[in-house]
Amino acid sequence: MNKENVLIIGAGLCGTLLAIRLAQRGYYVALVEKRPDLREIEQDAGRSINLALSDRGLKGLRLVGLEAKAKEQCIPMHGRMIHDKQGNTFLSKYSGREDEYINSISRPGLNILLLNEAEKFENISLVFNHGCKTVDLENSKAVFKNYENNEEVTLSGDVIFGTDGAGSAVRKSMFNHKKFLFSFSQEWLTHGYKEITIPKAEDGGYRTYINALHIWPRGEDMLIALPNLDGSFTVTLFLPYSNSDYCFDNLTTPEKVMEYFTSEFPDAVTLMPNLVEEFFENPTGPLGTIKCSPWNSYGKTLLLGDAAHAIVPFYGQGMNASLEDVVVLDEIIETYSKSASEGSNWKAVFEAYETTRKRDTDAIADLALDNFHEMKEHTASALFQQKRKLETAFEAEFPDEYQSKYSMVTFNADIPYFAAMNKGRAQDKAILNLLDDGKLPDSLSLKEKLAIVNKETLEILHDDAVVRNLK
Amino acid sequence: MNKENVLIIGAGLCGTLLAIRLAQRGYYVALVEKRPDLREIEQDAGRSINLALSDRGLKGLRLVGLEAKAKEQCIPMHGRMIHDKQGNTFLSKYSGREDEYINSISRPGLNILLLNEAEKFENISLVFNHGCKTVDLENSKAVFKNYENNEEVTLSGDVIFGTDGAGSAVRKSMFNHKKFLFSFSQEWLTHGYKEITIPKAEDGGYRTYINALHIWPRGEDMLIALPNLDGSFTVTLFLPYSNSDYCFDNLTTPEKVMEYFTSEFPDAVTLMPNLVEEFFENPTGPLGTIKCSPWNSYGKTLLLGDAAHAIVPFYGQGMNASLEDVVVLDEIIETYSKSASEGSNWKAVFEAYETTRKRDTDAIADLALDNFHEMKEHTASALFQQKRKLETAFEAEFPDEYQSKYSMVTFNADIPYFAAMNKGRAQDKAILNLLDDGKLPDSLSLKEKLAIVNKETLEILHDDAVVRNLK
Repeated sequence: MNKENVLIIGAGLCGTLLAIRLAQRGYYVALVEKRPDLREIEQDAGRSINLALSDRGLKGLRLVGLEAKAKEQCIPMHGRMIHDKQGNTFLSKYSGREDEYINSISRPGLNILLLNEAEKFENISLVFNHGCKTVDLENSKAVFKNYENNEEVTLSGDVIFGTDGAGSAVRKSMFNHKKFLFSFSQEWLTHGYKEITIPKAEDGGYRTYINALHIWPRGEDMLIALPNLDGSFTVTLFLPYSNSDYCFDNLTTPEKVMEYFTSEFPDAVTLMPNLVEEFFENPTGPLGTIKCSPWNSYGKTLLLGDAAHAIVPFYGQGMNASLEDVVVLDEIIETYSKSASEGSNWKAVFEAYETTRKRDTDAIADLALDNFHEMKEHTASALFQQKRKLETAFEAEFPDEYQSKYSMVTFNADIPYFAAMNKGRAQDKAILNLLDDGKLPDSLSLKEKLAIVNKETLEILHDDAVVRNLK
Repeated sequence: MNKENVLIIGAGLCGTLLAIRLAQRGYYVALVEKRPDLREIEQDAGRSINLALSDRGLKGLRLVGLEAKAKEQCIPMHGRMIHDKQGNTFLSKYSGREDEYINSISRPGLNILLLNEAEKFENISLVFNHGCKTVDLENSKAVFKNYENNEEVTLSGDVIFGTDGAGSAVRKSMFNHKKFLFSFSQEWLTHGYKEITIPKAEDGGYRTYINALHIWPRGEDMLIALPNLDGSFTVTLFLPYSNSDYCFDNLTTPEKVMEYFTSEFPDAVTLMPNLVEEFFENPTGPLGTIKCSPWNSYGKTLLLGDAAHAIVPFYGQGMNASLEDVVVLDEIIETYSKSASEGSNWKAVFEAYETTRKRDTDAIADLALDNFHEMKEHTASALFQQKRKLETAFEAEFPDEYQSKYSMVTFNADIPYFAAMNKGRAQDKAILNLLDDGKLPDSLSLKEKLAIVNKETLEILHDDAVVRNLK
């Protein structure tokens, strides 16, 4: 048994997965969470209760032996079901390969699965209701407030992991620490979000097609819906806060809310009997991207998950990226443990981790912002739909030869986000311009089209490289 | 006389220019500065004492009638004088047009010129030694500490302008204010900078060529030098803080400093008799980019200049962008004053200003980061030099038909930064790839080459637009 003590601040998905993995490696882990044990008290009404789990997240769960159990809680979503203003729908598949789909899963459900597993380890101690106030970065100690008795308690570890989410107290300690340069950005969209429920049907079934992520794209605003195991769907409205015909600032009466939904999403309105009530009861949440660097300070404290890189939800990759963090960190720990003469060289591990990982989490942050526009605007565009149709055909016909950007990001955990972004963007640019220029006429076979797309993609990558690698 | 009171926090270049312009428009202006009056006490040894003034900055000075006086303090720099490791030099001109050059000017000298002008206005009151602590954004009041007696004083205005630089206290009040979403980023380079002097020659002249910006590009690090009116040059070293053979962290002894400079910049060493002494006496400064949004809060407080958008110095545009801010704001004030029935609609002015200006200051921030790599690496590259040679030839032969990115940014204040960036990057990409592909052979006339470059540039812009404007 490794004798080192590890303090993990934040028992969400990333922190709990990390705790399990480090416990498997023999560390003594204290896993400290601000909120009450969510196995005892239901929390977070109206805050992203379901999420899209895909290959990178599954790989993280596989690392600790929980993939199969997690899959029992999953509902496959094979594509985007696009709803137009007249209520017409069509399914745009996520991939041309049959076995590639994303999964709707309950966030608290998955968290409970992880907490139950963590509890089995004698070398994990779980502490709830303790909110981190500050971290003494130079001495790897953290001050917590015990919300049960309002007393302050100081905990320490040989190292500290900050997995305390987008509003991370650990990250704030780094931001406020003036002895090193801390790069930091928080970028808010001018849109907010609000969750509404499509309850299960009266017969207990689903009120709309279960195996899809539903989208009502309307240019500036959109509605999406993901299925839950109990027959319901969680709907999310993405809408500007202000300066728009309809926006959170002016949807202030039941009449105005109904006017808006009836005019924009008539087929959805019929599925949401508690629309108005929930609209006014549920909070309006902000949508932000957070980046920072360095992720570690003094080789003693490391940020992981949303604490290090919070992203907007539009690629369905926030949770997946955070779980993949644990996989990447674990690989580096493994590499260094083989070469270390004795003890852990955390500073080297943390620096190698950021060197490997930072450009990937930056990439998925940018891709997620791109996808905001793609979902609310482009999914309704003819040229975009032509592209998706062609890509799906490539993937179905030549499964080993073509992967769309979406497939590389979502279904191929072996391709880092950064590489997926670069190749995927070049492919998108190639296909869109070839289609726009009429260079992929119907007279060509699918194989000929693929050859043209691949050649154009390589040229785009080459032209960019000439500028970038100027020597 | 307009009856409104304006509080301007920060009497640097931007704040003082703004004070003069608003005073010319009839406002009562209180201009409050944290530091002592720099006309009485010399300050800022070792901190960017000279800067490159070009067309956008000159336009700002022209707005208040100070262009001619400023020009008296200018030393023209016609190009980059590149110094290789053997001490060989060659001049790479900034433009093919004879009348396009940048100017080395003393920062305190220009600030004094502006303060002297401000002092002539009865409706400007100048207050020194008052540091802003916090701003009450909802009530447009600011608390200052009077450093002469350590007392706190509260000043208010109908509106407040925060022109208090990169470390802006006004911006911090917005960051800490929790009632609206404030997007913010601070990005630090892993390089720092340090200033060294090339004193005037013993005969009172210049020790190296006066009318150029000197660059010693060395890939990861570089030295630059700008001339001063007194015969000296201010040299700036840009060097990584750590993780490099030579870096600030390991240049800790006189021997190591001399070893580094002698091996990398032998011809410069002979010009800097006080190199070692100054290296250890002068501070090492960080290099950061700051962006934020919104720039105004409640229509009562507006950030301008470095407080709103601090950039790295590598395009020589920091001061120019801040002075241009005043030009852009003034145009919008003019537009709204014509349409206003009575009084000022500051909220509308501030929002229109940010809508117009934000993408331009974001663009120059990104261009300045690009130029860091261009200066330290690319200026020594054969392909880059070929490009510059071709562009200079285009500009000399077809002065009305071609402008390089550098010329659009630096010598054409009528082209907003954002437009200059987009067209300039496309041109760069076109030329570099055409050269790399051998598509601009010597057999072609210059006119034919220009036609090919223009055609390729348009195609690049078109291809990007297809992706961006997907409808």
